[in-house]
Amino acid sequence: MDRSAGSNDTRTRILAAAEALLRRHGPAKTNVVDVARALGMSHANVYRHFASKAALMDTLVDRWLKRGVDELTAIAEGPGAADERLADWVLAQIAIKRARVLDDPEMFEAYHAAAEARSAVAQAYVDGQRGVLVGMIREGVETGVFPKLDPEAAADALVAAMTRFFHPYFLKLDGDAPKEAEARRVLAIMIAGMKAGAV
Amino acid sequence: MDRSAGSNDTRTRILAAAEALLRRHGPAKTNVVDVARALGMSHANVYRHFASKAALMDTLVDRWLKRGVDELTAIAEGPGAADERLADWVLAQIAIKRARVLDDPEMFEAYHAAAEARSAVAQAYVDGQRGVLVGMIREGVETGVFPKLDPEAAADALVAAMTRFFHPYFLKLDGDAPKEAEARRVLAIMIAGMKAGAV
Repeated sequence: MDRSAGSNDTRTRILAAAEALLRRHGPAKTNVVDVARALGMSHANVYRHFASKAALMDTLVDRWLKRGVDELTAIAEGPGAADERLADWVLAQIAIKRARVLDDPEMFEAYHAAAEARSAVAQAYVDGQRGVLVGMIREGVETGVFPKLDPEAAADALVAAMTRFFHPYFLKLDGDAPKEAEARRVLAIMIAGMKAGAV
Repeated sequence: MDRSAGSNDTRTRILAAAEALLRRHGPAKTNVVDVARALGMSHANVYRHFASKAALMDTLVDRWLKRGVDELTAIAEGPGAADERLADWVLAQIAIKRARVLDDPEMFEAYHAAAEARSAVAQAYVDGQRGVLVGMIREGVETGVFPKLDPEAAADALVAAMTRFFHPYFLKLDGDAPKEAEARRVLAIMIAGMKAGAV
């Protein structure tokens, strides 16, 4: 038990040091040797916990992505009608994405690299969030909030319609002047259209 | 009268030569001296028709933009209910933008440079098209197709919702696989929402 506790502790220390280095130097210039040096341990010791730099990065990205998930899950599974939770969830997604892209650019870059490399961690996150979205819409269909709607097609349409407000390209373009009122308006029209059953 | 006809002819020949050079070398590398050389005339003669390279480029961009406008105007002013014309007009806008970005990249680059430089020609085009969009929505409000709708706000929301399908960033990303079905779906939901009067 002591040994396992120590092992977990080392793993936690490696992740903390790696995340700090990544924030300082970006994902490309963060490597296992520097992480080991920062902790005063051999890189062989780091490799005992993470088989490769990619595995270490994936774990960092996974931890980072999961930090926002509890808030999103609470909204998705909370009380209220499906259309209201859906609106709150989309707005929370935009706020989280904005903070990730603008306030934490190095970690976002690491996530983006993982997504581009089709890492299982990034894919699981994207699939998981899409699943939550489809689930909320399906619940709305079953409770009569959204009649005659294909939940998968409607989810993809909603994501496409909101792209202007959550895609990194536009988040960077808007910078300190987020288009909140505009995002709420598009969302309101989309949800009204989904209630009308058009898709 | 002869002299005026000759002058118009020279102007037309300059524009044709400039457009051909622009398509071959891009806007940055197209200059008045090369246009004059291609026509076997002095650059002083070109400057008699266009005061500067910027003026020549603006005229080229203006001509180019206007080539697509007749089709769009015909849709906007055609028969049918405002919501149907609106849908056709948005889809035509996407098709024209796609052709401009993907099939005519040098001319698009010249337009983009003019827009970035806030040229009057580019601004007039953008304002004009937005005016047509607002006009169609206003007509829909007046005829009861879109009840309780602010035409300006609804126009901006519709443009934002369709950004995924007409912005150059995504047109280049999609390349030979345009997202037509997805665009039609978002458009159908937006128009249904606008009919429901939410904005």
